[in-house]
Amino acid sequence: MNNIKIATCNSGTKYKNRDDLLFITFEKEANIAAIFTSSSIKAAPVKWCQKIINQQKIKALLVNAGNANCFTGTDGEQDVSKKVEIISQLLNCSKDQIYICSTGVIGERLKIDKIIDKIPYLYSIKDFNNKSFPKAAKAIMTTDTIAKHINNIALIDDKIININAIAKGSGMIAPNMATLLGFIFCDANIDPKILLQLLKDAAEKSFNSITIDSDQSTNDSLFLISTNNANNKIINNINDPRLNDFKDKLNKTCLDLAKMIVIDGEGASKIIEIRVNKAPNYKIAKQIAFSIGNSPLVKSAIAASDPNWGRIIAAIGKSYDKIDENLINLKIGKFDIIINAKLAENYQEHVIHNYLKNDHVVIDVELNIGNSNAVIYSSDLNEEYVTINKDYRS
Amino acid sequence: MNNIKIATCNSGTKYKNRDDLLFITFEKEANIAAIFTSSSIKAAPVKWCQKIINQQKIKALLVNAGNANCFTGTDGEQDVSKKVEIISQLLNCSKDQIYICSTGVIGERLKIDKIIDKIPYLYSIKDFNNKSFPKAAKAIMTTDTIAKHINNIALIDDKIININAIAKGSGMIAPNMATLLGFIFCDANIDPKILLQLLKDAAEKSFNSITIDSDQSTNDSLFLISTNNANNKIINNINDPRLNDFKDKLNKTCLDLAKMIVIDGEGASKIIEIRVNKAPNYKIAKQIAFSIGNSPLVKSAIAASDPNWGRIIAAIGKSYDKIDENLINLKIGKFDIIINAKLAENYQEHVIHNYLKNDHVVIDVELNIGNSNAVIYSSDLNEEYVTINKDYRS
Repeated sequence: MNNIKIATCNSGTKYKNRDDLLFITFEKEANIAAIFTSSSIKAAPVKWCQKIINQQKIKALLVNAGNANCFTGTDGEQDVSKKVEIISQLLNCSKDQIYICSTGVIGERLKIDKIIDKIPYLYSIKDFNNKSFPKAAKAIMTTDTIAKHINNIALIDDKIININAIAKGSGMIAPNMATLLGFIFCDANIDPKILLQLLKDAAEKSFNSITIDSDQSTNDSLFLISTNNANNKIINNINDPRLNDFKDKLNKTCLDLAKMIVIDGEGASKIIEIRVNKAPNYKIAKQIAFSIGNSPLVKSAIAASDPNWGRIIAAIGKSYDKIDENLINLKIGKFDIIINAKLAENYQEHVIHNYLKNDHVVIDVELNIGNSNAVIYSSDLNEEYVTINKDYRS
Repeated sequence: MNNIKIATCNSGTKYKNRDDLLFITFEKEANIAAIFTSSSIKAAPVKWCQKIINQQKIKALLVNAGNANCFTGTDGEQDVSKKVEIISQLLNCSKDQIYICSTGVIGERLKIDKIIDKIPYLYSIKDFNNKSFPKAAKAIMTTDTIAKHINNIALIDDKIININAIAKGSGMIAPNMATLLGFIFCDANIDPKILLQLLKDAAEKSFNSITIDSDQSTNDSLFLISTNNANNKIINNINDPRLNDFKDKLNKTCLDLAKMIVIDGEGASKIIEIRVNKAPNYKIAKQIAFSIGNSPLVKSAIAASDPNWGRIIAAIGKSYDKIDENLINLKIGKFDIIINAKLAENYQEHVIHNYLKNDHVVIDVELNIGNSNAVIYSSDLNEEYVTINKDYRS
């Protein structure tokens, strides 16, 4: 992806012995679309990105990990301005093409001088090779234990479109937002309005279909950036059939990345895939699936590989007032648990217990009160989740 | 409370070495009002109680702990009928004056024969002395570690009204329902319609203002029973000034009992009192308070006595879309943290850290976007919560 240059370093603000500052520049301006947290309290960098996103162009992106620059008032906003100012001078570009992201502790002032000092250095070492994206994924980690990078290839007009995506996030992850931070880069030539539509569609069934702890962040942001490097004829219609392969690959990229976040959920030992079928509509299906996926009782039972399916039933019951319990079917993996509200005749607890020892388990609910389906992904709940979050700031 | 007879025993169905079956009979029929879980999946005994509650009279109450008799289909309903049948014969009373409650694991069939066998024995040992209510409170426990019993005295027409209340619950506790099971007995003479209004009012700011794990149960039921033993002139107007002292004492009883449930929350080491002030209305104030009280990140930070107030801010932000972050004031205990969205000048982290080591901590949020206040109670989140729930059935 020739148009993209990547540099990382240690900022000296929070983490020792690892890079925590990422600087990405685009030789030619690229198209950009983004979605942001729906929290009413947004971090200063999120407010800045929201202000400039309508310009639809990007020349640079600066991300720091360890401090969210959120609830920092006008000080925090000035810190964003300072970063934008120096990058704009360095690149000789318009300020509204410079994106700033932050992730980490909320409410503490950023050590802005240390970050400002590093920007010229980062610009001087910018580069692109096959290690650039993995390195970028590492530099944006906070409590993440694995760096999250996915690459895919799609075809538009027989031209190869590289897709590279990175994300971070392992706590404060909940529905109705992007993950904490996600960046998807491609070298297609796509109108930014179409990029936004593609991003929203992909996010709905990936980043907006995962939960770790039901806690929504103030900094959640997901970006889709296209550099136009592939020189395909511009796409400006969401229904253009030339987009089909790209859509598939983008959706797959987002889903795989979102699943990586769940797998790396704080203290998680397995991923729980929750399918809710035959609900009145997609929204209700998803709401019921999240009720199961956010239940600490379900999540801790799964952690113990305990087929305590009564907790799944309770989570369904509290989630929607028009459930008909007599119509519920429930499977765990391929095994029938409940058929028409009765325990399956061939149910054997030890079989389910063994199945639940897998690191990817499926809960499959059939409500039979409609025709819509949803799938979400959650993690199990272990003592380690609590241990990590009792110790976050130390 | 002469009109009440209490008996408990071990049922042989679940727990060893402790009573888990409670039988209460009323010499004369008593008035009753109740509120039940709002879950769309309700246990068989809850369905039965809802069916008969409009008769407003009670002669007997049977409670078993260890099995919820929920999602047990027509078998479960027949098990309820069998219990009602034998009690009705024994007491020679109408079936619709016999209340059945169950609490425990969901989805397993009750060992009904063992329970049926015990009923004549329970009837033969019924008694009332000053140990009866504490014993009753013990017999309905599941994962509770302390028996929950409160007694108070109120005056109506210069007559002494005894109030005795018992409850159980320490997991699957969440807003918008009664606790798992709560029974309040008084010897006043109050019309059942007024009892219901009194109960709803008292529950709103007690049992419906607590959360441990945001998981709502299928069996939540809260009863208010008046035996008419005190012989006061009947009260049939909710605004009758003779009720004032009784209302105060009932509200206090419910609040103290609800707090006992939070203190005994699974793995809890402290109670978190969350006050949200100056919100647009009570419902929104409560919703924001619960967003803080249900946040695993806030709860685990409090467990560690870590003044990580940014997590409180994030929980406020996700809860309501019309927060103005510039107007937020935040106190922890009596200590200012945020004044007009800025860190208080005299903020000292170690002072707050020390304060948070108390076993009752207060989070006080002032939104300044309205005039309504709400208070809710939550518990901290420790590794032990997970340990208990990974091991519930074994």
